[in-house]
Order: sequence, then C-alpha cells, then structure tokens
Amino acid sequence: MDQIFRLVVSCPDKVGIVSMVSNLIARHSGSIREANQHSDFADNWFFMRYEITSDTKKFDVNGFRKEFSESAQPFEMTWRLVNSAEKKKVVLMATKEAHCLADLLHRWHSEDMQFDLECVISNHKHLEDMVNWYKVPYYHVPVSAEDKQEAFDQTRKIIADHNADVIVLARYMQIIPPELCREYFGRLINIHHSFLPSFVGAKPYQQAYDRGVKLIGATCHYVTEELDAGPIIEQDVVRVTHRVRQNDMVRLGRDVEKIVLSRGLRYHLEDRVLVHGNKTVVFV
Amino acid sequence: MDQIFRLVVSCPDKVGIVSMVSNLIARHSGSIREANQHSDFADNWFFMRYEITSDTKKFDVNGFRKEFSESAQPFEMTWRLVNSAEKKKVVLMATKEAHCLADLLHRWHSEDMQFDLECVISNHKHLEDMVNWYKVPYYHVPVSAEDKQEAFDQTRKIIADHNADVIVLARYMQIIPPELCREYFGRLINIHHSFLPSFVGAKPYQQAYDRGVKLIGATCHYVTEELDAGPIIEQDVVRVTHRVRQNDMVRLGRDVEKIVLSRGLRYHLEDRVLVHGNKTVVFV
Amino acid sequence: MDQIFRLVVSCPDKVGIVSMVSNLIARHSGSIREANQHSDFADNWFFMRYEITSDTKKFDVNGFRKEFSESAQPFEMTWRLVNSAEKKKVVLMATKEAHCLADLLHRWHSEDMQFDLECVISNHKHLEDMVNWYKVPYYHVPVSAEDKQEAFDQTRKIIADHNADVIVLARYMQIIPPELCREYFGRLINIHHSFLPSFVGAKPYQQAYDRGVKLIGATCHYVTEELDAGPIIEQDVVRVTHRVRQNDMVRLGRDVEKIVLSRGLRYHLEDRVLVHGNKTVVFV
Amino acid sequence: MDQIFRLVVSCPDKVGIVSMVSNLIARHSGSIREANQHSDFADNWFFMRYEITSDTKKFDVNGFRKEFSESAQPFEMTWRLVNSAEKKKVVLMATKEAHCLADLLHRWHSEDMQFDLECVISNHKHLEDMVNWYKVPYYHVPVSAEDKQEAFDQTRKIIADHNADVIVLARYMQIIPPELCREYFGRLINIHHSFLPSFVGAKPYQQAYDRGVKLIGATCHYVTEELDAGPIIEQDVVRVTHRVRQNDMVRLGRDVEKIVLSRGLRYHLEDRVLVHGNKTVVFV
Repeated sequence: MDQIFRLVVSCPDKVGIVSMVSNLIARHSGSIREANQHSDFADNWFFMRYEITSDTKKFDVNGFRKEFSESAQPFEMTWRLVNSAEKKKVVLMATKEAHCLADLLHRWHSEDMQFDLECVISNHKHLEDMVNWYKVPYYHVPVSAEDKQEAFDQTRKIIADHNADVIVLARYMQIIPPELCREYFGRLINIHHSFLPSFVGAKPYQQAYDRGVKLIGATCHYVTEELDAGPIIEQDVVRVTHRVRQNDMVRLGRDVEKIVLSRGLRYHLEDRVLVHGNKTVVFV
Repeated sequence: MDQIFRLVVSCPDKVGIVSMVSNLIARHSGSIREANQHSDFADNWFFMRYEITSDTKKFDVNGFRKEFSESAQPFEMTWRLVNSAEKKKVVLMATKEAHCLADLLHRWHSEDMQFDLECVISNHKHLEDMVNWYKVPYYHVPVSAEDKQEAFDQTRKIIADHNADVIVLARYMQIIPPELCREYFGRLINIHHSFLPSFVGAKPYQQAYDRGVKLIGATCHYVTEELDAGPIIEQDVVRVTHRVRQNDMVRLGRDVEKIVLSRGLRYHLEDRVLVHGNKTVVFV
Repeated sequence: MDQIFRLVVSCPDKVGIVSMVSNLIARHSGSIREANQHSDFADNWFFMRYEITSDTKKFDVNGFRKEFSESAQPFEMTWRLVNSAEKKKVVLMATKEAHCLADLLHRWHSEDMQFDLECVISNHKHLEDMVNWYKVPYYHVPVSAEDKQEAFDQTRKIIADHNADVIVLARYMQIIPPELCREYFGRLINIHHSFLPSFVGAKPYQQAYDRGVKLIGATCHYVTEELDAGPIIEQDVVRVTHRVRQNDMVRLGRDVEKIVLSRGLRYHLEDRVLVHGNKTVVFV
Repeated sequence: MDQIFRLVVSCPDKVGIVSMVSNLIARHSGSIREANQHSDFADNWFFMRYEITSDTKKFDVNGFRKEFSESAQPFEMTWRLVNSAEKKKVVLMATKEAHCLADLLHRWHSEDMQFDLECVISNHKHLEDMVNWYKVPYYHVPVSAEDKQEAFDQTRKIIADHNADVIVLARYMQIIPPELCREYFGRLINIHHSFLPSFVGAKPYQQAYDRGVKLIGATCHYVTEELDAGPIIEQDVVRVTHRVRQNDMVRLGRDVEKIVLSRGLRYHLEDRVLVHGNKTVVFV
C-alpha cells in the first residue's frame, strides 16, 4: 500500500484556498484520496483535512512541504503534514479503575488502533500486573496532598523522556496542574464520566442519580486549566431507568466511557480533530 | 374487549404488600394482566402498577375499591385505581412554535394517543388556524410584563372550567407562576429543549452551540416552582457535528422535542409515571 | 444572503479532479463554502459535492457551466449544478395512513423543509380533508386489481403535468410499475417499514413480531423494479421489548418511519445523495 | 447483605397465579424485592420473575421449594428457584478473534460480571497466552473437515467435565452439531455479527457492505439447530456511512458485538431471560 499523508489546515476563510492547495498537491504528484472541508461562518474560519497519496509518480513530500510553507503564509494558515505511517507516541495515565486502560491496551495490542504505546503512569499499583503482561513500562508515581508538585514534576519528566505526542487520562482521577495543561494543550485527552456540561467535577454518577436523569453519558475532551471545560471531541449516552441503582450506573457508564474515549483518541490519532477556540471540528 | 383498571400504589416498603394486594384482587374476581413493581432500597419505598381485568366473573370494582381503601391505610399507601376507558382531559399550551402542538394534535386526531383534548391556550394567535381545523377551542390569552397576574388568573380559570386532568406546555415559553405549579403538581408537563440539567433557562441551543457539545437533547418533566428542575419523565438526544449551525440545531432539536414530549405524555396518560421526591419511577 | 450553488460530481477516480474543479470555480469568482469528497477504492470512483457562493465578485454561473461542461468530458463526469434557491417540485403519494403525509405537510408548511409541494395523489379519500386544509391539490386515483394499468397511466400523467422533480411514496402501499420506476429512477423515494434487507414485502411488523427481534426499523430508499431492493438513503431503529405487542410495534414504527423519511427526503432535496450502483453516498 | 433468591416462572395464563405465589412467599417469610410479570395475550402465556429476600424472619427456602413444587403442578408451571449467590459455571469458546473473549475475560476478572469461568475452548492457539494470564484452563481442540465428529466429542466431554451451566460462543466460527444444540438448548449463547434476520451465515459484514445499509448490528441469541435462527436475547446497531470500508465495518462491528454479547450474557446469568417458542421475554 502506498504511503498516505494527512494535510490538516485551518485559517481565516478566504477565496482561493482550495485552488491553491489542490494545485500545489497536483504539482508535486500528489493525489487527494479523501477530503473534508468546513467553513465556520460565525467565525469566518476555514478548516481542511486532506489525505494525499501518490499520483502515477511518487508524491514529492519534501518539495511540497517547502513550497506549501511559503504559500501558507499570506493565508495565515495553521497547518501540519503528517505521514500516516509514523505512529504517534502515547502515554496512558490511570489510577485504580481498569476498564479504560484495559480497553486501550487491548486495542493497541490487537492493532485495532495504531499508536506507539510508550508507557503507563499511575498513582497506584493496582494495574501494574495487567500492564506488565503487555510488556509496557509501568511507572508508579504516587500523588498525595503534600507532594503533588513533586509527583507532577516526576510525571512531566517521564512524559518528556518518552517524547510523548499524546497523553491520555484513562480515568486518572487527579487534577492536572495548569502548566502541564498549557504545555500539552491539544494533546492531553481526558474521559469525563458524564455528559458534559452536566455534572462537572467529582462523583458525576452520584449527581446523575440524585437528579434522576434518564440517560447517562461520557465526554472525551482536551484538558484545559478550567476543570472539565476543555474542547469536546466526542460524547455518547446510555439509557438508565429507575431500576438502575448507583452501582449499576457506574457499571453501565464504564461501557460508554470506554467507547467514547477510544473513539475520541482514534479521531485524534488520525488527525481528524481541529481545535478552534473552545470547540472542535471533527472530520469523520 | 374487557375493561382494564390500573392500580397504582406507592408506600413505605414492607413485607406482605404483594400478597395483600393480589389476594384482594383475586377475591373481587380481578385478574392481573400486567404487573410492575419496584423497591427503592436507598429510600425503602415501594412502587407498583397493576393492570387488572375481569376474571371469569366480572371484576367487582366498587367492592375492591371499598375494601382496598381500608387495607391500604396501615401500609400508608398513596394509591389510585383508574379505569383505562376514562380518558384524561388535557389542556395544551403553546406560544408561536408549531411543531410540538402539531404533533400532539395529530396524535390525538389519529387516535395514536388516547385523551380528551379540551382546548389550546396560547399567548399568541399564530397557531389558531391550525387548531381550528381540528375543531378544538382556542383561547388567546396574551401575556405581557405588566398584566402577567391577570393573564394567569384567566389561564387558571380556563383550565378549571375545563376540569383539566393534565396541562401540557408544548413549548409555551412563559414561566408558570408558583401557585399554579403547586396546584397542578404532577399534572403539569413541560418539554425543555435541552438535556437537563445542562442548559437550564432560555436559549439552550445557543448555550449548546457555544459549548460545542456533540449531542443535543430534550427533557420532558413535571413543572415545579424551581425553573427546569422538576422530576424528569423522559429524555433523549440526537448527534450534532461541527457542520450543524445554530439554525440546524434548532431544527434537529424540534424532532427530539416532539418525540420526547409525546413519549412522556403517553407514559403519564397511561399512569406509568410515579413521582417520588424529585425523581420518577416510569413503568414501561 | 448570497445565492448558493451546489455542484455534484461523480466520475472514475483520477489525478487532478480537485485541482481542475477548484481552479475553474476560482476563475469564475466562485468561493467554496462547504466541500465533501469521497473516493471509493473498491470501485475506483470519485464523488464530490461543493457548495459555491460568490467571491468578492459575483459567481459567473453561466460562464462556469459552459466551461465546466467541456472540462468534465475527458473525466467522464456525471454532474449537475443546482441553484439552491430553486426549490424542487415534489409529488407526495399516500394511501390511508396519515402519519408520514401529515409530517411532510407540516414540515413543508412550517418551512422546516424547502420544496414546492405540487400535489398529493392517493388511492383513497381518507386524507383529503387534511390535505385540503393545506390548500394543496389532492388527486384521488383508485387502484384496483383490474384497472391497475389505467390507474398508473393517470398517475403518470398527473406527475408529468406537475413537472415533478421528486416523487415521495409516503406509505403508498401499491407496487409501482417497472416503467415508472425506470423513468423516475433516483427521484422516486419510498419509506419501507422495516430495517431492510430484513422483512421485505408486506406486513414487516408482523414478520418482526414473529421473529422476536429486539429492535425494529425503517428504511428510506430509491425505488427500483425489484421490490424493496433499491439504493438505501437512510435507516434508523427503535428498541422494542417483549411487552410491545404488534399494535404497539406499528405505533412505535410510525415515529421511526416519519423521521427516516423526512431525513432521507431532506438529503435528496439538498443534493446530498449520490447514487452509485445499488448504493448511495450521502454527504451530511 | 441478605441472600437473594430468583423465582422464575412461566405457565399458561390463569386467574390466581400472583395470589398463590405471593401468599406462599409470605408464608415462608420471604419478601419480594423486585418483581416482573408479563402476559402474552396472543399465546395466553404467563411469565414471572421475582427476587425474594428474607422478611424479618429468614426466608425458609426448603420449605418454600417443597410446597411450591406441589402448588405449581395444577398451573402446569415451568419454574426454577435460584440462589443468586451461587455463580453459574461458564465455558467460553473462541477461534482467533480476541475482542469478545478479551472483553468477557476482563469483565469476569474485574468482577464486572458474576460467574465462574471454567475454561476456554478454542480450535486455534492464538488466544492461549491471553487466557493463561488470567489463569484459566485453555483447551485447544482443532476442528477440521474430516475430524469434526471427534472434535465435538472432545468438546462435549470438556463441557461435561466442567459441569457447565452456560456455553458462550464468543465468535467461535464453527457450526455446532445438532445434538449439542439440543442438549444445551437455552444455555448455549452465540453472538452473530449482524442485525438478524439480515445477513444470516458467513461474512455478514461483506453482505452488509454490498447491500449498502446505513446501520450495522449484532445479535446475541440462543443457538438452535437452524443456523442463526434461535431465540434472540439482545441486539444493537451502530451507524455506518459510505466512508466506512469493509475493514472499518469489521472494526466498528467488534464494539457492538462485545457490548451485545456481554449484555445478553448478563441477562442470562441473572435469570432475566425466559424462552418461549422461538422468542424471549427479557425482564430488565
């Protein structure tokens, strides 16, 4: 199979973008095999994702990249060109609950999802055995009220040492310090166990139970400094009835959390998510 | 077809309820054709809905009712026995938006739902023609900031004159005064155009759009004095993408609103909803 | 608001399509405000839908059309350029069941959907009153076993007299003759009351009930000569339990039928559906 | 927590069933904590599931069982009384595909589901390592065209040696011989990777792709001699678009298969499924 490159662009909306981009691709022997575009009229902003393969001649990536970086400037484009064959480096963080971590480990191991799993960081030892079976490094970094700064310094170092492209909070129940949120903005993904903006913060299932809602949900979002308020990537819900007690809610919720996190992460890994302000464009 | 009676009971949970009730039904020649029970352990509360028909001999309703009202006392039961053939009297209230009202009118007219449609009350004239076609009385009761009290006195009188069993706010965009909320508690049904508790109050679609959620919803609930905070009967959602502008959100939302309101009202009309505190038990 | 044109293209996949099309649009002062493309690798076929508005200068539609029709030839393109302001002429056909017809009438009347409603054709008189209220012509064309040919000749004439762009079978329970299927292929839309390919033909709810399925569905598709086998535009399902009797299935199904038909028709009216073989590409 | 017993009954519908059963329970100091009943009018058949705990005095299980078995006879009841604390013995069967097996292993291991996992039987060695980690016996029983009889004799012996209550075909891609279907009828659960009755047999995703459906599904059912035609326990679907290629369909389908199988199995393990003819009553 031929190599596929993903060109992801966002910029102020203007006449001539598509024409400029498609000409440049054609000139460097690229062929557009999948295309998504979106114009946000409220904001006058343009979003694009192209999958580019080779034409009859091989796509001249370097030539294209060089010329495109010049042509992109007058359009004030934010862009990246990604070789889909180069897997992103992922760090998973978890606490005690296994379901999201186990799901992602299995998807990685069975090649259901394509990424390099660098390591797992946890503030507990509960999941170490499971992770060991997959032969993935496991860092136990306890976090307590008094040593939080130290714990996150250590965490940050591990992430940096592994050159992580993406950090996934797979039910990691600690609040991430602001500087880490800023440093990894757009690459730090959380799964929140409620249908945001309902039930922000701790114990969302308890809150949902007390309110008597008829559906519970989960939200995959980028982490920002404001708790549970970052750009939403994906959400889904499941029906609950009066028969569903809190324990059952937690259990039913786990299945939605897994699905929503894996969908959100997949979109991110495939460069389908473009962040704009506090919202996302997701090309699926 | 034989007559069907609905026995709806809630009370503190205790040993012997089912046995007492089923014996009494059997003794008066009743036959249980559909049964739902639920015990709320957190609250130690018992809920029951039976559909009773006649045994080989005719169900002795009056005898049963008399004896049951005595037997129910030591159990501190709240209960009602409803003849399913006696349709509930419904008053619909609307403003300018037609979709929920049109949907309910059509369901009533085509006998998709069973109720007596008493009248429509609206603070505008926009929907009068449509209602006239169905030969249903239409009361135009304008509501302005200064005459709110007067308008709601008039509204209340109309509702009372029609002996309404149920009032449905089919996108009636006025806040109901507290005394009306109290008087018709458990019989005053609203459709809110968001997935509560997200986006309480006005312009929920605007709020949803601004937050960038990936699902929008609707909530059918009983009205209480606290805005959009009453017991939830039914909820549902629909998926939205970045392509969905605010107008499209409003349009997609309309379809969910209709469905959720009609489901919630149907459950109520069939005596399937039991209110307990700020939550509902819905036997479907 | 500026005029919007929809350019819909399908052709064998080839290098240079996007570049050719976008250049031509730019050269005639067009601006692409929404773009969808898809490449079917199995078939090596290319699909595209652009929404084009005016650039700073007005989009030169005629000039574009002229030049494009030439440029399209070497690519063997099937294409159309549609002015979104020109509403499609729709003929609705129904029998006795009101729900789909009532839903579409209401959507048309409330401008929830944009089309010119030419007339309603029915083989019964049941729905005439309702249609009259909307001031839409109603043709009663009875169909009986012996006069089928004559009835469809008359039907065909009415459709032709109204210059129908689209014919919608809103639960029209007669089999359409092959020549009409062929003549209006890709413009003749049916709603089938099952999740096709399950339960082809008559009485799908009976079939679903007998099989004991846990979900029932509806399918909106283009009509072809082979019964219920044409290209599928849209499908959806609703959950049923053992409590749901056949009558209730029919009732629950009605709500799915309405939603699925209105979605499918909307996609068609907005030129979002591209037929390819027996399948559809739906750009939403 | 007090012990919970599940009383599951089905019989011809008759007056006095509830009264007889509830009296007997009360007389033996039982308390009904959750009750479900259903009457199938088409068939005149009665279904019931009670969860019974102790009253202020301990529920006299043996006394109840003895007396009930006599009282049940004139009603021609099929019934069982199950101690919920006694876990069912489960044998899992798989081939090469890991997703359903991995999901059930994780649910068992994390006590998300309550059962005794006896062993895994597979006609391949691919999943042995994974199963070993969970310290669960793994039997490799190859099946080839010529030795089918022998392979299934061996399989049968393993199942019998383990006293299996339930056999789960977690994507076990072999056709089960008729005598095994008969012997374990109502205890042999399969997950079929389509929304039955669509796409019976092999390669359902290929069939779905070729037909161009807009939703794909999965079906959990009891196995009978007729392929993919047994009583359905649970079904669900997921949306697909024209962008979804066959590989993606398989991948999307895996998530539905896992969810549907785990739901169906849970219902079975909790004695919520009553088979009647070729249909099921599922009390959830």
